[in-house]
Amino acid sequence: MAPGPSERLRELHLELPPPPTPKGSYAPVVRSSGLAWVSGQIVFEQGAVVRPGLVDRDVPADVASELARRATLQALSALAQELGSLERVRRVVRVGVFVAVSPGFHLEHEVANGASDLLLAVFGEPGRGSRATVGVAGLPLNAPVEVELLVEAP
Amino acid sequence: MAPGPSERLRELHLELPPPPTPKGSYAPVVRSSGLAWVSGQIVFEQGAVVRPGLVDRDVPADVASELARRATLQALSALAQELGSLERVRRVVRVGVFVAVSPGFHLEHEVANGASDLLLAVFGEPGRGSRATVGVAGLPLNAPVEVELLVEAP
Amino acid sequence: MAPGPSERLRELHLELPPPPTPKGSYAPVVRSSGLAWVSGQIVFEQGAVVRPGLVDRDVPADVASELARRATLQALSALAQELGSLERVRRVVRVGVFVAVSPGFHLEHEVANGASDLLLAVFGEPGRGSRATVGVAGLPLNAPVEVELLVEAP
Repeated sequence: MAPGPSERLRELHLELPPPPTPKGSYAPVVRSSGLAWVSGQIVFEQGAVVRPGLVDRDVPADVASELARRATLQALSALAQELGSLERVRRVVRVGVFVAVSPGFHLEHEVANGASDLLLAVFGEPGRGSRATVGVAGLPLNAPVEVELLVEAP
Repeated sequence: MAPGPSERLRELHLELPPPPTPKGSYAPVVRSSGLAWVSGQIVFEQGAVVRPGLVDRDVPADVASELARRATLQALSALAQELGSLERVRRVVRVGVFVAVSPGFHLEHEVANGASDLLLAVFGEPGRGSRATVGVAGLPLNAPVEVELLVEAP
Repeated sequence: MAPGPSERLRELHLELPPPPTPKGSYAPVVRSSGLAWVSGQIVFEQGAVVRPGLVDRDVPADVASELARRATLQALSALAQELGSLERVRRVVRVGVFVAVSPGFHLEHEVANGASDLLLAVFGEPGRGSRATVGVAGLPLNAPVEVELLVEAP
């Protein structure tokens, strides 16, 4: 039997960060119709956004990719809290990656791979969701990357 | 028993605006799998976009937040028309807020709170949906804010 | 009996392009809860993005609208491959259109009509989905348009 996501996280020497705190009257996760929607995640550490700025001008693409990975870990932390356990996730359905870019940057997909590669590593093939990746003009609190997640969780 | 959304709207002295008219061959609301997707709403008045421009450079953040509230009211109007009544909404599932920003603006989440706070006031706790908020380079017809809504409505 | 989508495509003298190849560890299509999510599509030809650049400054709006149409055909190609046939699509639920714009362009909705008009032509009234259209700062590989699709497919 394949290892579950919690065991895979251990094998990857990854720990889930503290679950995120919404910056307004919205929910970290909402469940409906057998699906669970996780709010867009930007990476916080000790109450501050990590590496604020635009990707390329202020934040190198490889750092942004790592932030996409960490934002995804935050999303998994929110899910684990809501579902009780990540073993309840049956598959990843959709990943939305928003990259705040300076003009002329065209590697949003490489940044987004930080999210997708982590999901594949944690969930195996069911971690391969659909994806939409775009470059945006800005993000809350000058964050360079935001990751939104939709999973199947009956 | 808690008051329903229609009664709460009355208590808040809010009236639903006329339901929106799509600017193309799409639908204001689509229902499927126990959910209802509302198309992205920009605020119109007498056929024209209200307060066109970029947030910060042309439109102050507090005005943009009020526009997010009004766009959400338009979304509720579309839902009321499609469902027959807002009492059919079981909960808010996801709110997408797109804010057209000038460079250096980083308070997209405060703008988005105009949408989230209204949904909480109208639906109570079930009005707390998941949320994704981003700053975009532009919106149709130079609108400063667009709000997209997904609700559970069996 | 109304013609199905495959017959309509023939009547429109349209052929589905080759199904898209994901640029990372994500899936072209994911099915869950009676719905099918198609990853964001940018238009490729012989391995290269077609007409790279920003809409208005580099790519005229009418060309961008045609690219929205072609991106939607790619999405239908991915769906046909996943579902076995487009006849399995019961209705279009949501269309997301991201247009990479230069400052001052405000006709994102006209670009998006390239996607919506095609869906209406191929599926008839069930092709009228909900829609969110935004202008973004950039897209992967400098593509001017990205189209994301969600359909009902039991």
